[in-house]
Amino acid sequence: MDASSPQHPGAAAEPMRICVVGCGAVGSLFAAHLGQLEEVETWAYDVSQAHVDAINRDGLRLTGVGEVTGTVRATTDAAELPPCRFGIVATKALHTESAMAAVAHAFREGSVCSVQNGVGNEELIASSVERVILGTTFPAGHIIEPGVVGWDTGGETTIGPFEPAPAPMEEVELLAETVSRSGMPTRALADARGAQWTKVIFNAASNPLGALTGLTHGRLCDDPALRKLITGLVAEGKAVASALGITLDSDPDALIDHARKVAYDHKASMLQDFEGRRPTEIDFLDGGIARFGAEQGVPTPLNETIAALVKGVELSWSTA
Amino acid sequence: MDASSPQHPGAAAEPMRICVVGCGAVGSLFAAHLGQLEEVETWAYDVSQAHVDAINRDGLRLTGVGEVTGTVRATTDAAELPPCRFGIVATKALHTESAMAAVAHAFREGSVCSVQNGVGNEELIASSVERVILGTTFPAGHIIEPGVVGWDTGGETTIGPFEPAPAPMEEVELLAETVSRSGMPTRALADARGAQWTKVIFNAASNPLGALTGLTHGRLCDDPALRKLITGLVAEGKAVASALGITLDSDPDALIDHARKVAYDHKASMLQDFEGRRPTEIDFLDGGIARFGAEQGVPTPLNETIAALVKGVELSWSTA
Repeated sequence: MDASSPQHPGAAAEPMRICVVGCGAVGSLFAAHLGQLEEVETWAYDVSQAHVDAINRDGLRLTGVGEVTGTVRATTDAAELPPCRFGIVATKALHTESAMAAVAHAFREGSVCSVQNGVGNEELIASSVERVILGTTFPAGHIIEPGVVGWDTGGETTIGPFEPAPAPMEEVELLAETVSRSGMPTRALADARGAQWTKVIFNAASNPLGALTGLTHGRLCDDPALRKLITGLVAEGKAVASALGITLDSDPDALIDHARKVAYDHKASMLQDFEGRRPTEIDFLDGGIARFGAEQGVPTPLNETIAALVKGVELSWSTA
Repeated sequence: MDASSPQHPGAAAEPMRICVVGCGAVGSLFAAHLGQLEEVETWAYDVSQAHVDAINRDGLRLTGVGEVTGTVRATTDAAELPPCRFGIVATKALHTESAMAAVAHAFREGSVCSVQNGVGNEELIASSVERVILGTTFPAGHIIEPGVVGWDTGGETTIGPFEPAPAPMEEVELLAETVSRSGMPTRALADARGAQWTKVIFNAASNPLGALTGLTHGRLCDDPALRKLITGLVAEGKAVASALGITLDSDPDALIDHARKVAYDHKASMLQDFEGRRPTEIDFLDGGIARFGAEQGVPTPLNETIAALVKGVELSWSTA
């Protein structure tokens, strides 16, 4: 293994090395696909020893939307990671900091792309590495058993250089081409924030309401007072995005209505977090919108309210 | 039974008849006390046959802050009620309409006083009877078994004529004197709305937050984001009260901090409603403040948000 290539570890004669950081449901979709490409050496860093062992023994298998098995070198020990040209961070947002602290050494010459939920992950990644790519992904899945992941939904991934710690656009384009070729359609944009903010505004206006009330997406939409609250949350998110100079991909309010049609019975993922008493990603959803709002001087009382209530629920799981 | 006395049924030779409508924990505090007075004939209307039977057999007994046993004529059949000079309505706010529809005949010549939680009850009472008294009570209790109620907290009751369907001030004063003499200190004011709004603002800013998060009052107050939300809810309530020309008895925000000291571990009564899947009084708390706000042109987005979430939780108990 030659780690001396100064600009692009894994370039030239060596295969391109890409490491998925956090190989849960979404991370596994990327890792399994990339693991099919001969010209890529795919690594995965994950905290689950059982998952890592199964991947190293049998490969990483996807089933559902498509059947895919990729060859992936998986490890729970960040010290084992070689220098990589790209990182794809897919941990839960609240594990970004600890994961990046462990793996940053592998990306000293590389570029690291977030495909996580919410806003604020890239800022955390940029505190560990120099070249950061902002990303948003729509495909979803679930772990079936160690080494095997259900691929539930297809969809596009959008990536772009993250300011003020951007990866070079050529690197962003190379990553998009490579991931697309592996079977995960990915587009590279000079400004990829539109997709990210469209998704976060949608998510912040619906997911925590499902968690706090226990209602499915469709029933939330059918209640006039809750639908009005959704519109209020979306309006605050749009105002913050606008202040940041972001052009949204589409109107989150229309996406909410669309989801009512195609996913009426959808149960919020945050409700599942509540039921399992797992910390949520609220700090990167409503909490993230509120934080960016405060920086921009845009009031976000509704997003702050929802974030406070969800954090309060998390707090109630611990004794005083 | 002579129902012909035109102005004051139960006046003159007859004893003064007072009927407690809704003889739960709070109603029982009033009924048991009044049932000790020789000059008062105390009635109670309640939907619990077991409670009614026990009261008629053994009297209505309080234990706790004081030991009291009162003689009360209790019934589940509103048709049995004789004409009464006073009614004291102590049902849950969401049962006001149905209870008043049943008992209104007994108060054709009488005055009916609400001692219920929240705002908006008197309006409902006034749609059934002509002379209404607005009231707020602080004593609290809990049903121990049929006929026996735990008297948990003492405190004052404040009553006054309700506009635009006021009982005469002399009647308000007579009721206050009578209830006070029975052992429940009660003051009559020309404008009793200050006490009511102070209590509802306090309640709306704390009770549903405890229900939605599962946190005790003290832990709510210790979380900076939730404490900020409380202040925001209080500020909206104060703005609505001010638009209505109401002078609050005291600052609800200071009462919140006081309660943190004296009732840190208090579990919100609405959380108990959630756990028992019982409909809450939210329409008369945050929902009531929002309704009065809308009438006055005062924005109440935070109270609307909390009301929508609590109604959403209630909705989740029924299938779509």
